[in-house]
Amino acid sequence: MSILADPRDVSITEKNSHPLSSLFAPRSIALVGATEKSIWTHFIMRNFKDIGFGGEVYAVNRGGNSVLGYPGFSSCREIGAPVDVGFITVPKSVVADALDDLAAAGIANAVILTSGYGEMGEEGARDQDALVAKARSLGIRVWGPNTLGFNNVAGRAPVSAIPIVKPVLPPSIAIVSQSGASASEIAEYAHSQNIGLSFVAATGNQGDITMSDVIDYLVDDEQTKAIAVFAENICDPEKFVAAAEKARRKAKPIVMLKIGRSELAGAIAAAHTGSLLGNDGVFAAVCERLGIIRVFSTEELIDVAGLLGATGPIPDAGLSFISISGGACTLVADSAEDHGVDLPANDPATAQKLGEVLPDFAAGLNPLDITGAAIRDPDLFERVIPIMANATGIGLVAINMPVPTMDGQSVPAALAAIGRACKSIVKPVIMAQTCAKALNDTSRQSIAEYGLPHVMTGLEGTLRAIGKAIWWSSQIERDLPSLSFVAKGETGEKVPTRNLHSEYDVLAYLRGCGVPVVAFELVTSRAEAIAAAGRWGGEVVLKIASPDIGHKTEVGGVRLNLTADSIGAVFDEMLETVRSLRPDAAINGAIVAPMRSDPAVELLVSYSNDPVWGGMLTIGLGGSMVELMGDAMTVPMPVDRSAVQDMIGKLRGAPLLKGFRGSAPVDLAKLADAIVAIANAAESLGPELASLEINPLLASGLRIEALDGLATWHEKGNGDAD
Amino acid sequence: MSILADPRDVSITEKNSHPLSSLFAPRSIALVGATEKSIWTHFIMRNFKDIGFGGEVYAVNRGGNSVLGYPGFSSCREIGAPVDVGFITVPKSVVADALDDLAAAGIANAVILTSGYGEMGEEGARDQDALVAKARSLGIRVWGPNTLGFNNVAGRAPVSAIPIVKPVLPPSIAIVSQSGASASEIAEYAHSQNIGLSFVAATGNQGDITMSDVIDYLVDDEQTKAIAVFAENICDPEKFVAAAEKARRKAKPIVMLKIGRSELAGAIAAAHTGSLLGNDGVFAAVCERLGIIRVFSTEELIDVAGLLGATGPIPDAGLSFISISGGACTLVADSAEDHGVDLPANDPATAQKLGEVLPDFAAGLNPLDITGAAIRDPDLFERVIPIMANATGIGLVAINMPVPTMDGQSVPAALAAIGRACKSIVKPVIMAQTCAKALNDTSRQSIAEYGLPHVMTGLEGTLRAIGKAIWWSSQIERDLPSLSFVAKGETGEKVPTRNLHSEYDVLAYLRGCGVPVVAFELVTSRAEAIAAAGRWGGEVVLKIASPDIGHKTEVGGVRLNLTADSIGAVFDEMLETVRSLRPDAAINGAIVAPMRSDPAVELLVSYSNDPVWGGMLTIGLGGSMVELMGDAMTVPMPVDRSAVQDMIGKLRGAPLLKGFRGSAPVDLAKLADAIVAIANAAESLGPELASLEINPLLASGLRIEALDGLATWHEKGNGDAD
Repeated sequence: MSILADPRDVSITEKNSHPLSSLFAPRSIALVGATEKSIWTHFIMRNFKDIGFGGEVYAVNRGGNSVLGYPGFSSCREIGAPVDVGFITVPKSVVADALDDLAAAGIANAVILTSGYGEMGEEGARDQDALVAKARSLGIRVWGPNTLGFNNVAGRAPVSAIPIVKPVLPPSIAIVSQSGASASEIAEYAHSQNIGLSFVAATGNQGDITMSDVIDYLVDDEQTKAIAVFAENICDPEKFVAAAEKARRKAKPIVMLKIGRSELAGAIAAAHTGSLLGNDGVFAAVCERLGIIRVFSTEELIDVAGLLGATGPIPDAGLSFISISGGACTLVADSAEDHGVDLPANDPATAQKLGEVLPDFAAGLNPLDITGAAIRDPDLFERVIPIMANATGIGLVAINMPVPTMDGQSVPAALAAIGRACKSIVKPVIMAQTCAKALNDTSRQSIAEYGLPHVMTGLEGTLRAIGKAIWWSSQIERDLPSLSFVAKGETGEKVPTRNLHSEYDVLAYLRGCGVPVVAFELVTSRAEAIAAAGRWGGEVVLKIASPDIGHKTEVGGVRLNLTADSIGAVFDEMLETVRSLRPDAAINGAIVAPMRSDPAVELLVSYSNDPVWGGMLTIGLGGSMVELMGDAMTVPMPVDRSAVQDMIGKLRGAPLLKGFRGSAPVDLAKLADAIVAIANAAESLGPELASLEINPLLASGLRIEALDGLATWHEKGNGDAD
Repeated sequence: MSILADPRDVSITEKNSHPLSSLFAPRSIALVGATEKSIWTHFIMRNFKDIGFGGEVYAVNRGGNSVLGYPGFSSCREIGAPVDVGFITVPKSVVADALDDLAAAGIANAVILTSGYGEMGEEGARDQDALVAKARSLGIRVWGPNTLGFNNVAGRAPVSAIPIVKPVLPPSIAIVSQSGASASEIAEYAHSQNIGLSFVAATGNQGDITMSDVIDYLVDDEQTKAIAVFAENICDPEKFVAAAEKARRKAKPIVMLKIGRSELAGAIAAAHTGSLLGNDGVFAAVCERLGIIRVFSTEELIDVAGLLGATGPIPDAGLSFISISGGACTLVADSAEDHGVDLPANDPATAQKLGEVLPDFAAGLNPLDITGAAIRDPDLFERVIPIMANATGIGLVAINMPVPTMDGQSVPAALAAIGRACKSIVKPVIMAQTCAKALNDTSRQSIAEYGLPHVMTGLEGTLRAIGKAIWWSSQIERDLPSLSFVAKGETGEKVPTRNLHSEYDVLAYLRGCGVPVVAFELVTSRAEAIAAAGRWGGEVVLKIASPDIGHKTEVGGVRLNLTADSIGAVFDEMLETVRSLRPDAAINGAIVAPMRSDPAVELLVSYSNDPVWGGMLTIGLGGSMVELMGDAMTVPMPVDRSAVQDMIGKLRGAPLLKGFRGSAPVDLAKLADAIVAIANAAESLGPELASLEINPLLASGLRIEALDGLATWHEKGNGDAD
């Protein structure tokens, strides 16, 4: 079978003018440390043969011996011809010498397989820093160390010990993995799903060139239709964001399995390397903003990438599903609901057309059970598929019919009819197998013979992948701002940071920034307290004002339901109590504010400065229920009114704001404006701010009003409040 | 390769004395309608050969011709030897005649492949009823109609057109499917996971013998270690429950993929057959009670059944995971958290023992990354596995190391070390492959050669399956009551049903049953209202009392915050307003009850009589938040205090009851007793009650009290209230 196009058609190095082309699509490679005694040498050199590398390979070793048929040299300098990449597999003790040799030979790229660096704790990290510094001083870019390398499969240029899975299939997706072992296993799974690989990379320690660099390269690579990433952390977030934004502009999907979400994984990572895996909610929000598809298993990673690699953007949100099995149709209806896939009921015109070719009872339905009749009369498929594909709102058609995997397995005539039907369909079409299975040469023979579209296996996984592919397709047109990254940016200009310590300071600052804040007064004497309460008329709350007291309630620093009559004695008593309990604390007086007891929805609005991804806005709903129900949404900064309204709309408690059970609806635009003002006010405080939390922000038909505010700072500060 | 034990060891028909043994493990089969022109005949007869059926096969057709080497007869009567099963494949018009022939020949079991019955709407259903009635009158049990039959694989007795997947593996699990096409595809998937099948059944229309019957048979079948069920509905719930309870007693897992959960599936089923798929929350509660493992994909169905088929009950809740890949360890930590699998940190003694054989940094961790060192030194596995297996709290050990699937693939020496280590481990051990893959003869060769344990593929799916297997293992010891099934039971004896119409009736009934109910009085005049309010002292609520008025608020029938001073005028005004708006309604007066405004948690307590599964108790928490957050639990009746306390504890809002943010904790035993009293009171109302809902049941540190009650009845009644 000749499935792969003529390799001469694949002139990637000529087409791709990316700055890293000489590394990622090399035409000549020196294997430094090549020896027939090394299993690595065998793995690496087998790849050259398996893939038909058309460039030059030089074996470099102390004796200058040729290895496995490739000419030998005792150093790179001796080669006497241009070399794109030096692939270094020598022991750690002589890696520096190898770099010197590369430099002397004018080789600009090193791939370093040798381990014992950043992955081995602090001492290894220091060695790695020194190694990379040396390479930089020599003008050499480094992939690795501690990497199995990469296979540019579509470009026929393997620089890797990761085995090539055969037969090589027409390129579709790239795999980028932080783990070498996983890269190889994920590549095998992709192959079992008949998904061709354009590129497989194991990033190793990312001492110099990173995962973001190779993603950026692959975004520009025409042979790569989708990029599947298996990663534990992202070491250069700005570069990653830039690559992801370019990918979205080019409508090239990035699918990402980011491991290390769990508490346990965080604990393990800390034990190993002290590394911070980051907050998963934050990363989810970043992916949402960037249009990166998040997945949670290696299979899903490949299923989604393979689907979009085959179909490209899916033009509409509806799925048509056709099967001869009622059971499969019901299973798909369930999975579609689980994964948010819309199976629109057939429009009347479609139902009428279907009625002309099908038993009556089936005509209006999607998923469509065309019943075993299609086995006796396979042309039914040919008549039905175009009708379903042309129905209103349909972006993708999935046909459930087994593709053979066993020699001698009976091949339903329906496959030929399906292949004929697909020829005339412009929209994406796939075949969906009921259960997960491995496709193989037998499958490929049927696919080629009948002209079948992309095959996916396992209905549940297929529907999950379709849901994510449709989501991505809806994102590529969106015009969204890039991340603020204030965490790493310059200090805010408007406000000198770290002067906000107490609730009073925070509320005053927010009011100055245009945030609606509850009326409040700082009082410093019994007389002022009584006067303030008198001015408000109704009941008031009295709260101790101190930059040094975090939890006011614990020291008797909050008293509710006071009036001008009662507040005087309470003021004296509060100050006395707090001073005796916290003699260390500076007391500025107390805050007097009106009690709010009319029905209102309590929101939590929190701005936080993530150490990796910068400013993040979180909105939660339901007062004390927020923490129990986890009803909160996070998005990266910046935000505008419409983004905040979207966030609010996605909260489960959102109906509470819209006039639930007879209460007056909240003005959502005004609420969003208040939240945007809070977020911008927080961002203006610059990178030293760790978080600014408003809890609660009260929202009712009557008013929107921040009642309390708390700021925390990255360095240990003294300004917090409850 | 001779993987299957000698068939002579498998004398199922002798061992199994189940009443359906002559059907499910036949020693002689007449294929009625056998002809070489029929593809069905070819499929069916190929199975006899593929599996090595040791019994007699007779071909029955009009001409009495032998077929594919089996002797021919023109009728069953002519055979002249005992026949266990008549497998009927003749056209619908002559099925009745075939039954007469079976009866005449003394054949007690018919498997009817012929379609056109219950699956084809009302007329087909009538035909099916007639067919089954005829069979009954002839003393014949029927499997089908519209069935592909079943393969008793372990018993070497196939009565089916479902292909046998070869090579036949040692039996482990049974597959029972309502869909014939799905049975075949699920069986193929199981085979690809190296999971042997004991039995594969396609139930078809279940006209007589049902899915529950075959499950009951398989629970008794020693060759079946786990039962995987793919079903759309359960037509005989009492029998199903009995089989499931027997399975739990025998520690034989039932894993169930029940399709038709979604709204869309429900709509499709209604369009096809008018069938009621049932409420998924109710079925989930039934499975929880019965210890049935629910799954949501065909792959999960087989993964879980295959795991438990291999390991049996898992003796402890902790998993040990060992890999040479840090990435795999992190992925497993994430998936474990997703699926509720506990990976206990190694106890100090274990860590110390590991420290003696491993690099320091790895010793305390689980999942345990023993690093690539184990490739260079495979004996590391042999030293590490027993230490991990013997750690405190560990019930299962999973080892992540690739098992080959390709001829000529390099086989790590680690596999031999793993095999050696496993020999000494008493606890269950599995191999976990990073990605999903199909195991094959090459894999089986390694498994046999190295003595490897059960292999699972795809870490995410493996962890999900482990989570469910561990849950099941924790359930088999539980002593739980059977379902009440009151919906189908006799009318309750204590109370004549359907006399509860108004809120007053309901609250009075509940109070009589020992439920704590808010103090309330029925008043029929302004003077009585004033007197009642005066007796309570504080503020009261006034609610119209009418058996005919459902939504009191809509007709001005609820007024809050009244006192003895204000209630008189309001009473007159309310009765006038309600009478003018609802002149049809009988008005019994109004209810006066105290206002409750002290802080309390609102619960919803609802009893409902499910048409399939009988009495169900639902508890929700959070007042109006219940419906937005979906924070509710359902369990089948009966319940006791401890069951209700379990339910409450599983609500996300449960901390609200335990003294959240300074409020006094609720007496949970007292709360549970109140809920049990409500549930029992409702159940006593018998099968005509559709539902009884208490909303809210107020719970605080001060009191537990039902404030309102609403009863609805299966036949259209007039008693509802709001």
